[in-house]
Amino acid sequence: MKNIKLLIEYDGTNYLGWQRQKDKKTIQLEVEKAIEKVTGEKVKLIASGRTDKGVHATGQVANFITKVSIPGERYRYALNKNLPEDVKILVSKEVPKDFHSRFYAKKKRYRYIIYNGKIARPIYRNFSYHVDWDLDLDDMRDSLRYFIGYHDFKSFMGKKSDVDTTMRTIYDIEIKKHDEIIEIIVEGKSFLRKMIRIMVGTLIYIGIGRISKEDLPRIIGGRNRVLAGPTAPAHGLFLEKVYYD
Amino acid sequence: MKNIKLLIEYDGTNYLGWQRQKDKKTIQLEVEKAIEKVTGEKVKLIASGRTDKGVHATGQVANFITKVSIPGERYRYALNKNLPEDVKILVSKEVPKDFHSRFYAKKKRYRYIIYNGKIARPIYRNFSYHVDWDLDLDDMRDSLRYFIGYHDFKSFMGKKSDVDTTMRTIYDIEIKKHDEIIEIIVEGKSFLRKMIRIMVGTLIYIGIGRISKEDLPRIIGGRNRVLAGPTAPAHGLFLEKVYYD
Repeated sequence: MKNIKLLIEYDGTNYLGWQRQKDKKTIQLEVEKAIEKVTGEKVKLIASGRTDKGVHATGQVANFITKVSIPGERYRYALNKNLPEDVKILVSKEVPKDFHSRFYAKKKRYRYIIYNGKIARPIYRNFSYHVDWDLDLDDMRDSLRYFIGYHDFKSFMGKKSDVDTTMRTIYDIEIKKHDEIIEIIVEGKSFLRKMIRIMVGTLIYIGIGRISKEDLPRIIGGRNRVLAGPTAPAHGLFLEKVYYD
Repeated sequence: MKNIKLLIEYDGTNYLGWQRQKDKKTIQLEVEKAIEKVTGEKVKLIASGRTDKGVHATGQVANFITKVSIPGERYRYALNKNLPEDVKILVSKEVPKDFHSRFYAKKKRYRYIIYNGKIARPIYRNFSYHVDWDLDLDDMRDSLRYFIGYHDFKSFMGKKSDVDTTMRTIYDIEIKKHDEIIEIIVEGKSFLRKMIRIMVGTLIYIGIGRISKEDLPRIIGGRNRVLAGPTAPAHGLFLEKVYYD
């Protein structure tokens, strides 16, 4: 028995998200089908977490157990031959038997990309959210400190969530700007459903003055989704890195 | 009568190229249809030049003559409302009656993007050419000087071309690298069909040592397509800027 860990990149544009939904077009299904072609086995991939419909990843991690003796590093090439061009394995390797992509994850980094110009640019359209408002980056940056730390993020949770606790830890959040691209980079232990997209939507509302940055503690403390800003669209979001010990 | 100049960006992935071919899916058709919706007129757009199937543009220029009195700068918004998301007008303005996008073009800049890593990355796949060979950038850069100037580029012309002369002038060509992205930027007065893609294919062959950089003068002098390297694929190429006085 081998435990194989995969580092996966995907363009989520044409998928319903990571998680398998029978035979619907999901990333998990594509990778599991490729594994079956290579090993002859039906496996269940364990990912670091789901990504929603339309969300991208440049560093998703998943693992699976196999009886086949193919060396771990060979899977990259073998699976990529059987994967569509919008899903590829960047690295494959054998890991200790007990490794579990979700339970062992220590930290995750997401990146949200905003194209902040007047025209929705064709070249960037699938990989950024077009915002044509003038954004006050100083106000947005000033408000970031309220997110950092261990808080109840219930105001930043999407509907249809089923979780034991809405307490989450944000380690770091920063905003970078170069030309018309604004990147919001968030690192945390784990996240609630749509949490980053609601944080981004709230930050944009702070940037246009529709929400005051001083109101953020009240929004967090209110524990009510209606207090926060809108959910920013999926196509600006990238799961960039999952950290393990 | 007004002469309206448009600066156009497009993702060429899903098009047969710029030039109208009756009702087939071309960029020219999309923009002409949008103009007809806005003005009620059937116009013939004059572009700075064609781009081939799959080639992108971040700075194509085209103009049209209209009897409608809409101010030039209004077209941007009006046309964008009627254009698909992979074709957008970045700027529109009225120009003197005699302006002609092709005849008045002084210089054009193209950018070719190579993703030079081991794996064909999903995120870059439509906007770069994946090359996994190790490339000797010093050799590639050393050979660039042979392209600069007024030369017969017959060895770098695609088939089915119908031109009076194969003499062309290259003003500048440079290679930039950042991380795994290599960009080849070419400026010239005008170009033969597929000329830049064959230049790029030849440079890649120089980069892997299949063509010696010292052979480039002989390849140019030979005036024969078979001497040069392969045609690099369309999806790495961007028409970036057209210069006018």
